[in-house]
Amino acid sequence: MRIVVTNCNTTQEMTEEIVRGARAAAGPGTTVTGLTPAWGPESAEGWLDSYLSAAAVLDTLRTYEEPYDAVVMAGFGEHGREGARELVEVPVVDITEAAAHLACMLGRRYGVVTTLDRTCGQIEDSLDTAGVGRNCVAVVGTGLGVLELGDSARTEEAFVRAAERARDAGAEVLVLGCAGMTGLQRAVGEKLGLPVVDGVGAAVKLAESLVSLGLTTSRAGSYAKPLPKRREWGEGS
Amino acid sequence: MRIVVTNCNTTQEMTEEIVRGARAAAGPGTTVTGLTPAWGPESAEGWLDSYLSAAAVLDTLRTYEEPYDAVVMAGFGEHGREGARELVEVPVVDITEAAAHLACMLGRRYGVVTTLDRTCGQIEDSLDTAGVGRNCVAVVGTGLGVLELGDSARTEEAFVRAAERARDAGAEVLVLGCAGMTGLQRAVGEKLGLPVVDGVGAAVKLAESLVSLGLTTSRAGSYAKPLPKRREWGEGS
Amino acid sequence: MRIVVTNCNTTQEMTEEIVRGARAAAGPGTTVTGLTPAWGPESAEGWLDSYLSAAAVLDTLRTYEEPYDAVVMAGFGEHGREGARELVEVPVVDITEAAAHLACMLGRRYGVVTTLDRTCGQIEDSLDTAGVGRNCVAVVGTGLGVLELGDSARTEEAFVRAAERARDAGAEVLVLGCAGMTGLQRAVGEKLGLPVVDGVGAAVKLAESLVSLGLTTSRAGSYAKPLPKRREWGEGS
Amino acid sequence: MRIVVTNCNTTQEMTEEIVRGARAAAGPGTTVTGLTPAWGPESAEGWLDSYLSAAAVLDTLRTYEEPYDAVVMAGFGEHGREGARELVEVPVVDITEAAAHLACMLGRRYGVVTTLDRTCGQIEDSLDTAGVGRNCVAVVGTGLGVLELGDSARTEEAFVRAAERARDAGAEVLVLGCAGMTGLQRAVGEKLGLPVVDGVGAAVKLAESLVSLGLTTSRAGSYAKPLPKRREWGEGS
Amino acid sequence: MRIVVTNCNTTQEMTEEIVRGARAAAGPGTTVTGLTPAWGPESAEGWLDSYLSAAAVLDTLRTYEEPYDAVVMAGFGEHGREGARELVEVPVVDITEAAAHLACMLGRRYGVVTTLDRTCGQIEDSLDTAGVGRNCVAVVGTGLGVLELGDSARTEEAFVRAAERARDAGAEVLVLGCAGMTGLQRAVGEKLGLPVVDGVGAAVKLAESLVSLGLTTSRAGSYAKPLPKRREWGEGS
Amino acid sequence: MRIVVTNCNTTQEMTEEIVRGARAAAGPGTTVTGLTPAWGPESAEGWLDSYLSAAAVLDTLRTYEEPYDAVVMAGFGEHGREGARELVEVPVVDITEAAAHLACMLGRRYGVVTTLDRTCGQIEDSLDTAGVGRNCVAVVGTGLGVLELGDSARTEEAFVRAAERARDAGAEVLVLGCAGMTGLQRAVGEKLGLPVVDGVGAAVKLAESLVSLGLTTSRAGSYAKPLPKRREWGEGS
Repeated sequence: MRIVVTNCNTTQEMTEEIVRGARAAAGPGTTVTGLTPAWGPESAEGWLDSYLSAAAVLDTLRTYEEPYDAVVMAGFGEHGREGARELVEVPVVDITEAAAHLACMLGRRYGVVTTLDRTCGQIEDSLDTAGVGRNCVAVVGTGLGVLELGDSARTEEAFVRAAERARDAGAEVLVLGCAGMTGLQRAVGEKLGLPVVDGVGAAVKLAESLVSLGLTTSRAGSYAKPLPKRREWGEGS
Repeated sequence: MRIVVTNCNTTQEMTEEIVRGARAAAGPGTTVTGLTPAWGPESAEGWLDSYLSAAAVLDTLRTYEEPYDAVVMAGFGEHGREGARELVEVPVVDITEAAAHLACMLGRRYGVVTTLDRTCGQIEDSLDTAGVGRNCVAVVGTGLGVLELGDSARTEEAFVRAAERARDAGAEVLVLGCAGMTGLQRAVGEKLGLPVVDGVGAAVKLAESLVSLGLTTSRAGSYAKPLPKRREWGEGS
Repeated sequence: MRIVVTNCNTTQEMTEEIVRGARAAAGPGTTVTGLTPAWGPESAEGWLDSYLSAAAVLDTLRTYEEPYDAVVMAGFGEHGREGARELVEVPVVDITEAAAHLACMLGRRYGVVTTLDRTCGQIEDSLDTAGVGRNCVAVVGTGLGVLELGDSARTEEAFVRAAERARDAGAEVLVLGCAGMTGLQRAVGEKLGLPVVDGVGAAVKLAESLVSLGLTTSRAGSYAKPLPKRREWGEGS
Repeated sequence: MRIVVTNCNTTQEMTEEIVRGARAAAGPGTTVTGLTPAWGPESAEGWLDSYLSAAAVLDTLRTYEEPYDAVVMAGFGEHGREGARELVEVPVVDITEAAAHLACMLGRRYGVVTTLDRTCGQIEDSLDTAGVGRNCVAVVGTGLGVLELGDSARTEEAFVRAAERARDAGAEVLVLGCAGMTGLQRAVGEKLGLPVVDGVGAAVKLAESLVSLGLTTSRAGSYAKPLPKRREWGEGS
Repeated sequence: MRIVVTNCNTTQEMTEEIVRGARAAAGPGTTVTGLTPAWGPESAEGWLDSYLSAAAVLDTLRTYEEPYDAVVMAGFGEHGREGARELVEVPVVDITEAAAHLACMLGRRYGVVTTLDRTCGQIEDSLDTAGVGRNCVAVVGTGLGVLELGDSARTEEAFVRAAERARDAGAEVLVLGCAGMTGLQRAVGEKLGLPVVDGVGAAVKLAESLVSLGLTTSRAGSYAKPLPKRREWGEGS
Repeated sequence: MRIVVTNCNTTQEMTEEIVRGARAAAGPGTTVTGLTPAWGPESAEGWLDSYLSAAAVLDTLRTYEEPYDAVVMAGFGEHGREGARELVEVPVVDITEAAAHLACMLGRRYGVVTTLDRTCGQIEDSLDTAGVGRNCVAVVGTGLGVLELGDSARTEEAFVRAAERARDAGAEVLVLGCAGMTGLQRAVGEKLGLPVVDGVGAAVKLAESLVSLGLTTSRAGSYAKPLPKRREWGEGS
């Protein structure tokens, strides 16, 4: 099975890190290919970035010509998943919803710990429209930007502090609220005594699940194939 | 990986059918063991049956002594999953929630087609508490009892008729609302032109996903281990 | 009028205490009979206990042969009420919903103070499905187990502390969240300056109300009579 | 126990009819006194009437000097109940909420059948703020005005037709959506095979319940006593 | 364009202050006329006052004979707007909803700062029924009564303290929760670094908008014209 | 006052039509400038188009160098408004929310009539996140694509047919669900006997209102200014 993982930003190192996380989760017969958008923001933090990212990721998928069996969209809380569902013929799994789907089965209520406070609202909206917002009790920011997550000691500490706020709000399970946090789940889970779900790993497993069950996106209603028409993808295209 | 699948009723033939469906979905390294409760209802249709079934299934798990890595609870809309999460040390996936989790990723809204009308309310409640009720637009009965599903032509026809009502209500994806419908997904999906999710297969894949990611139920809050105390499981025990 | 009150656990002393509370609330022409399940948990604290209790209570009702006019189910937040509605011909009132119904008429928002934190989620779910969750602003645990409520000074103190958290969350009325707290309402109400509703008393009055108005459970849809079929109630039966 | 029942309009005959219904429901020790506002609309049908009625009913209570133990407000869907809770020292029960509270215990979903379509929205709002709107699946108008309910054959027929729409929407229990329908419950219930709840009777029983349990409105927060200040009740006062 | 602004209480000075605020917001071609009810409460604080006020304001509009193009109802959180929509032929804008409509476009979540805590619930209900409650995260009282707002230093200080609680709850925009606060928006907005919306100004602009677009209240369904019938407005009329 | 109106697609004729509608609504001192994205879809119909459109519109605003006082985004149900709020210093009003805000003040429930069924879900999501979804009872498609609206007789007929479905669902007010329908409101409103709100006109009036009240987007939390970073807008830029 061939899974394409799309980074939501143009930072190649982050794509590589995400691919490492995806491969660690993938089953034996699964290959993972990471795609970095040729344009877009270097990191997605806020709505402006998110909409720019959505178009760039869709453009990346539109112009990717190798065969694949599923798409994992690795932008936590970022826009675009419904457009990808229209565009491609295979299942599309977004790491935001994926983490939430698994979290719902591990505890009665879950919380998300993410990067900057400004992104919390987007994540809430994304969970709601995905249909899994009901059991989310808190989305909490660590105050660290996407490209500041490299210092893992600092990130862990900030994560644990934010996670305690989520736990006080009733979270029994935590979700890593950024693809750049992938790998953190073990360490912080032990410190907190709670299961911690990484969206990248979750999405890989859900994509494998859908493919192996022969399921793909419905074409009835919302996610019908895009109508043929003139579309220009950035001024240079 | 060893998955235990619990039938919610005492009908051995149904356990076997469920196990067949589960094995068809399971990955190469997964073994599936079906458990039939030693007591309970011969089929679960309504709240009385469901609560009786919940206790019987929990008793079955409590007294099962072989090692296993995950539990799949194969009673669509039946009670008990939270109790199993308290009881066992491994992930527990209920086919109701499992089907809904996958359905949410295949279309914007989904519908459930089930057996008797009397069970629709239970299913709605089960989806709500699992946190995946938001995108469900309809739970529709076929009018067929659990033990009447054997005649597959009649079942298919009744399913398609009920599914059309769900589609008119906005369903873009359908869910088989009874473990006894397992196997039907392909035929009715083709007739309806919609993806159809079988909860048994869905739950097996989700259980495999949780196990392979090293995730299990949170012990913080709701699903803490049962307190040691005197419990009697039926008058004879 | 003859009201049967079912304890949710096997502790005879608690049945007696509940019956005392029920009789204190009952009108002049009402007789109260307490039933203690022959099996089940000695106290219900969490989902495992609750499902076991539900089956045991239903079995108790199923095998009780004296005539009666209404059932009061005295397990706060415990499962089973819908099954009892299917099973018996007379009105069934659960103390959880009963307390909430009355609380809604005494203030704009109410809160529940209960035993262990692990039961709060169950209570929330029970209020929601009963249709009276909207005006509940908090369900707060005292940290005391069901069988630890005997020391009334300690219980009162723990209750008042927890109630203050509910009040800070906006509760204008409080509900005693355990049948074992019956009798506490007066003392803590005075300390807190808030009305405190005891579910046992509330349920007795609501049961009397339904009976005297000639109302009983609808047989249309959800609570139709159980279908005749083979059911076994525990291994020994 | 002395219950005061306030009609929401100035039509004396309707007060008498309501009092008859209230007395039929009242327990042996309960006396019922009907109050007809000295001003207000001759029937309440729509928001303008409802706000006028609310003030007139509050004025009626404010100036009523006999002692009483509870108030039943007999305007279905009409405004004013929260004001009465501030004003008087005893429990206040509105027939709208009362009928809904009982209906919730008789079936999983209920519906309301009322007079003119224009009042349906008000009733929905009233149920929502009372905290019992969740399980209401439909509020349906008969097309008959409040003062047109006298022809009981026509009213019954219109009621049954409207009730069928509520039943198709999932109602398992019906509520009489106008105090002027009191008495109809038996006849239409038999025709429909569903329990039918009359708000006047329901409110009387709930008022008796609250009084006998020693419960009254919370003074904390929303329903604190009115502040002393200058208030003029109509130009002539 | 002629806008009539109705004060919700009988305090003439407050009408004048509201009219000043309304005129400051009005466009060049707009004239503003303030109406003070001839009866009602001297200030509206709580449900009793609010229902009395609603009837008095409707009576004021009913008997006002000059021509006008729109009504602004200047009672924050007070009842009556739906009745006015039935009564008059022109658009009716309530300052509660008006402030919320604008606030929704200025930030993802807003909060309201009002007078006494007892009015918070009414405001929440008013926002909900107006359809704009979803993005409101907090309604917070300052502890100052309507007629205590004159000391502007004290009011500002109390407002800022309460606003900080709303901000902590997630408010990105604030709403002045009393017509008597009109004029405060600039000063407190600067101190808090947040946009502050005054309902009076907001309502004037929305009324002008509706009029200039040729839009007025729908007569279909809820806000049909009042039926002709006998109505008495206070005992003296 | 200078309002910039952004078309969501690259079809210049549609920009012109929208500008005509905007000018018809604008007050005497307001100038309207239409902007057509240099790239994006020729019409926006579905999520893929919508995300592409969002990025293109944001790019258009980012590179527009003339001064202006407010932005109107003229893509009904299209993404992007939150990004624009981050990007520019002036108020941003989206025609989707604008129409809904006004509709809420004209009737108790409103409905939207739009182009293709595939866009209905997007519109529902957009109304929900804008905080005005509660009173929307139906979003109904006409089956006509955005570029098929030119034949006004056909469009009117399709609109009226779809509007009747919305009315049956309880809509008392209608919203034109596409900027390309601007101008239709008068004709269909008369046929239907309901107020019909055009989002373009509504947004112009709301933008004027915000500007004239000195209100602009909150920078606290969600809509903080975009962080300085490397962003590329399409491959050619």
